[in-house]
Amino acid sequence: MAHRPHPSERVPHGCDRDLFLAELHAFLPENCVLHRQEDLRVYECDGLSAYTRLPWLAVLPETVEQAQTLLRLCHANGVPVVARGAGTGLAGGALPLDNGVLLVLSKLNRILAIDPANRTARVQPGVRNLAISEAAAPFGLYYAPDPSSQIACTIGGNIAENSGGVHCLKYGLTVHNVQQVKMLTMDGELLTLGGSGLDGPGYDLPALAMGSEGMLGVVVEATVRLLPKPPAVQTLLAAFASEEQAGHAVAAVISAGLIPAGLEMMDNLSIRATEAFVHAGYPVEAGAILLCELDGTEEQVAAETERARRILQQAGATEVRLAAGAEQRQRFWAGRKSAFPAVGRLSPDYYCMDGTIPRKRLAEVLGRIAELSKQFGLRVANVFHAGDGNLHPLIFYDANRPGDLDKAEDLGGQILEACVAAGGTITGEHGVGIEKINQMCVQFGSAELEQFHAVKAAFDPQGLLNPGKAIPTLARCAEFGRMHIHGGELPHSDLERF
Amino acid sequence: MAHRPHPSERVPHGCDRDLFLAELHAFLPENCVLHRQEDLRVYECDGLSAYTRLPWLAVLPETVEQAQTLLRLCHANGVPVVARGAGTGLAGGALPLDNGVLLVLSKLNRILAIDPANRTARVQPGVRNLAISEAAAPFGLYYAPDPSSQIACTIGGNIAENSGGVHCLKYGLTVHNVQQVKMLTMDGELLTLGGSGLDGPGYDLPALAMGSEGMLGVVVEATVRLLPKPPAVQTLLAAFASEEQAGHAVAAVISAGLIPAGLEMMDNLSIRATEAFVHAGYPVEAGAILLCELDGTEEQVAAETERARRILQQAGATEVRLAAGAEQRQRFWAGRKSAFPAVGRLSPDYYCMDGTIPRKRLAEVLGRIAELSKQFGLRVANVFHAGDGNLHPLIFYDANRPGDLDKAEDLGGQILEACVAAGGTITGEHGVGIEKINQMCVQFGSAELEQFHAVKAAFDPQGLLNPGKAIPTLARCAEFGRMHIHGGELPHSDLERF
Repeated sequence: MAHRPHPSERVPHGCDRDLFLAELHAFLPENCVLHRQEDLRVYECDGLSAYTRLPWLAVLPETVEQAQTLLRLCHANGVPVVARGAGTGLAGGALPLDNGVLLVLSKLNRILAIDPANRTARVQPGVRNLAISEAAAPFGLYYAPDPSSQIACTIGGNIAENSGGVHCLKYGLTVHNVQQVKMLTMDGELLTLGGSGLDGPGYDLPALAMGSEGMLGVVVEATVRLLPKPPAVQTLLAAFASEEQAGHAVAAVISAGLIPAGLEMMDNLSIRATEAFVHAGYPVEAGAILLCELDGTEEQVAAETERARRILQQAGATEVRLAAGAEQRQRFWAGRKSAFPAVGRLSPDYYCMDGTIPRKRLAEVLGRIAELSKQFGLRVANVFHAGDGNLHPLIFYDANRPGDLDKAEDLGGQILEACVAAGGTITGEHGVGIEKINQMCVQFGSAELEQFHAVKAAFDPQGLLNPGKAIPTLARCAEFGRMHIHGGELPHSDLERF
Repeated sequence: MAHRPHPSERVPHGCDRDLFLAELHAFLPENCVLHRQEDLRVYECDGLSAYTRLPWLAVLPETVEQAQTLLRLCHANGVPVVARGAGTGLAGGALPLDNGVLLVLSKLNRILAIDPANRTARVQPGVRNLAISEAAAPFGLYYAPDPSSQIACTIGGNIAENSGGVHCLKYGLTVHNVQQVKMLTMDGELLTLGGSGLDGPGYDLPALAMGSEGMLGVVVEATVRLLPKPPAVQTLLAAFASEEQAGHAVAAVISAGLIPAGLEMMDNLSIRATEAFVHAGYPVEAGAILLCELDGTEEQVAAETERARRILQQAGATEVRLAAGAEQRQRFWAGRKSAFPAVGRLSPDYYCMDGTIPRKRLAEVLGRIAELSKQFGLRVANVFHAGDGNLHPLIFYDANRPGDLDKAEDLGGQILEACVAAGGTITGEHGVGIEKINQMCVQFGSAELEQFHAVKAAFDPQGLLNPGKAIPTLARCAEFGRMHIHGGELPHSDLERF
C-alpha cells in the first residue's frame, strides 16, 4: 500500500528507543508496551487503510495515571504522540508516526457510572459506542449518536472526530451529546471541561475538544447524555425514478417542518449492491430510495407517518412502503447499514468521501458527482445522510491497478471542492485527518488557518500531539496551490469581505 | 452607585485622548464618536447597574470596515476595547473602561438576508433578537432563543453571552442556533467561523466564540438558524403546595420523556408580586406554580398535553389549568415574563442571580437558598427555567441602605457556591462578566483557568479585548482565597483526579 509523506508531520527528537522503552517499563506492565514489529503491525493504520506506517512504539495504559505519566515523559523528551481508539476512523486521524508513541486507549474501557436520574453515563474513552446504549438499556435509555461503526468504535474516537450517524439529523452529533470531558494535555495536565448544564461559564472548551482529532489533548473520561428510548418508531421506504427527484423530496419533507430521526438516500448502484448482498427487499429498478424514520410517542409517530407519506407521494415517489413491524423495519435498515460492505463486493477497493452541502443544492451536487465520475472513469455510489446534506460518495478503484488510487483520491478531492463551491464543507462527520488536509486550504483562508494554529499552540505549544493532521500549515497550502485562488466562488473565502 | 475596582482590568497605555480622537475622525463621521461626558453617560453601565464607569471614548461604527479600522488603530496603540450591544447584559460584561474604547455595535443593525429554503437569516450584530423573528414571520419561521430582554437585546450580545431563554430546554441556547459568525480579532483580522453543516472541519471556533463575552473577538455578522413555527401550542399551569413538590413534578415530567418547549417555576413571592402587577389569574395561595408549554403538530400537542396533565396531577398538583386559547396562553406567560419588573415593585432594588444545578437537586438547593435568605435577612424570590435546572434567584435589597448591596452580593455568591457544590455551575445564560468572576475560582481549578488564559492569548495576546472580565487571574483567585480549598466537595475540583 502507498505511503505518502506529509511534510509537516515529523517532529524530530534525539531519543534512543531502547532507553525510552526502559523508562516506560518503570511505570507500565510488560504487556502495555508494544515494540516488536509483529505487535506493532496491528496498529499501522486506521480505517483509511491506504496509508500505513509502523509506530515507533505503542503504549496501552491501564489507568489514567499511566497515561498521564506517559504524556509527561513524552513531553519532557519531545517525543510526539498520536492517540488512538478502535482505529475505525476513515480519514487517517490515527495514522501513527514512525518516531512517535501511539497511545492506544483500548484498555481504558470501563463504564464508570450510569445515572438514570440525571440521564448520563460516565465512561472511559475506550468504551465502545454501542456498549453505552447496552449498559443504559435496563433503564430505558440509550446514547443517541450512532456511527455505522458503532459496534466497534469508541467514545474517545467519537469525541476526537465529533462523530454523527444515521440519527444525528434529529439528535445531533457527539458535541450535542457529551456534557463533560476530562482531558490530558500534552504536558500531562488533567483538565475537566464542561459540566452538568446546557451552558457553562468560561470559554466553551468542551466544544473545542470535540472534533479536534486528538490534537489538543487526550480524552480520558467522558460524561455523555442518555435519552429515553422513544416509545414508537416507524420507517418509510420511498422509491423515486431519479436521485434528483429524491433530492427534492428530502427538501419537501424538511420544509414541511418534519424532523425525522433519520432520512437516508441510496442511489441505484447502492440499492442493487445491497439487494444482492442482504436481500432487504429494495426496489432494484428505482433511481434512488429514501429511508425516512420517525420516532416519538405513538400518536405523534402515527400522525407524522401519514404526513410524511403524503409528502413523499406528492414529491413523485413511485412507491412508498411502511414497515409492517419491527422485523421489516430492521430489514429496511439492514440494507442501509450494510451498504458499505455491499458496495465493497462490486469493486476491489473503494474510497469513502464525506462532505456536506446545503440541502437545497443536493440535486445539483449529485449531478456534478456523476459528471466527475464519468470524467475520471471511476464509478461512484452514493449512500448518505440526505436529511442533513451529508454526502458519502463511495469511489470504486483497484489498488492493484497502477495509478488508480491516485485517480480516486484526485476525484475525491474534486468532489469535496464541489461541496465547498456549493456552500458546504469538506467533512460532515469523518474528520480531516490526513485525507482531506489539502482541501482545508480550499475551505479556509489564511486568517482562519492561522487562528487554528494559535489555538493549537494554546494547548500544545511544541506541536507534539498528532502532528501533521487536520490543520495544514500555510506553507503546505501554498504548495498545494489552492489557497485563496477561488476568490468569489467560495463562501469561506474573502467573498463579502466588504 | 458603587464602583468596585477589578484588579486585572486596567491595561495602561500612553495615548493622548485628543490626538486619538483626531485619528478616529479621520475615518469616522462626527456622530459616530462620542467623547463628551453627557454623551458617554448613557454607556456607563449595562444591565448590572450597580457598577458604573464612564468610558474613555465610545465609538459607534456604521460599517464593518470602520469597526476593523478602529480595532487596528486600538491594537497599534495598545488601547483596550470593550464591545457592547444593547447593554441589557446582567453580569456587567459590557462595563466600560475609563481608559478604553467602548465599541458600540448598535448602528450595525441590518438584516442582510432571510433564506427560507436553507432556513437561515444573515444579520449584523446590532439586530435585535425579536427583529429576526419578525423578519422571518412572513415565511412561517422564527429564531428560537428568547431571552426575557428579546425586544431590546441584540444578536451580537446574545452570541457574546450564549443567551438562552424560556424555550432553550427544547430548542437550545444561542450556540445551538447560530451556524456561522464573522468575527474581527483585536488586530483587525476578519475570521469566518462555522458554515452550513451540523459540523465543520477544523477546531470548533464558532462554539468558542459563543459565550466568550467579547474577549476573543468582535462579532460583525451572524448567520442564524430559523425554525418553522410549530402549528400547535398549548400551555398548562399547575399549582403546588410547596416548591419542593413542584420540583419533584419537574423531574417527573422530564423522566416521562416529555420535552416541553418551556417548563418554568415561580415561587409564592413571585406569584403574588406578579399577580398584583399584571393580574395573570395566578393562584396566589400556591406554594409554587409551574408553566409547562408543549408545541408541535396538533395531534402531538393534544397527546402530550394529556400526558403532562396526568403527570402533574400524579405529582400532587392542587390544580392544573389548560389555556383555553391563545389569549389565555398569553396571559399565563404575561405573568412569567413580567415577573422581574413585578418583583422589582416589592423592593427598592433586586439582584438577579443565574446558576444551574442538576434537576434532581432542585428541591434541595431551593431549601438551601431559603436558609441563606433567612441568615442574611434578605428576601429571595425564585422565578426560573426549572426544566433545565437554571435558577434565577432574585435577591431583594435597598441600595440606599449602607451595606445592603454588599450583603446582597455576598448572599448571591453563596447561592452560586451552593449550585457548584450541588454539581452545577455559576451561570446558566447570563455569563460571568464582572459579577461572578470570584465564583469562577470556585468553579474551576488552576489548570482549567490557565487553559482559558492560553486560549484567550491565542486570539488576543496583548489582552486588549474586554480585560478583567469573565476569567479571573490566578492571583485574583489566590486573593479571593477560594481556589482548591473545597477539595472533595466540588465536581470540578480535584475530586476523582485518581
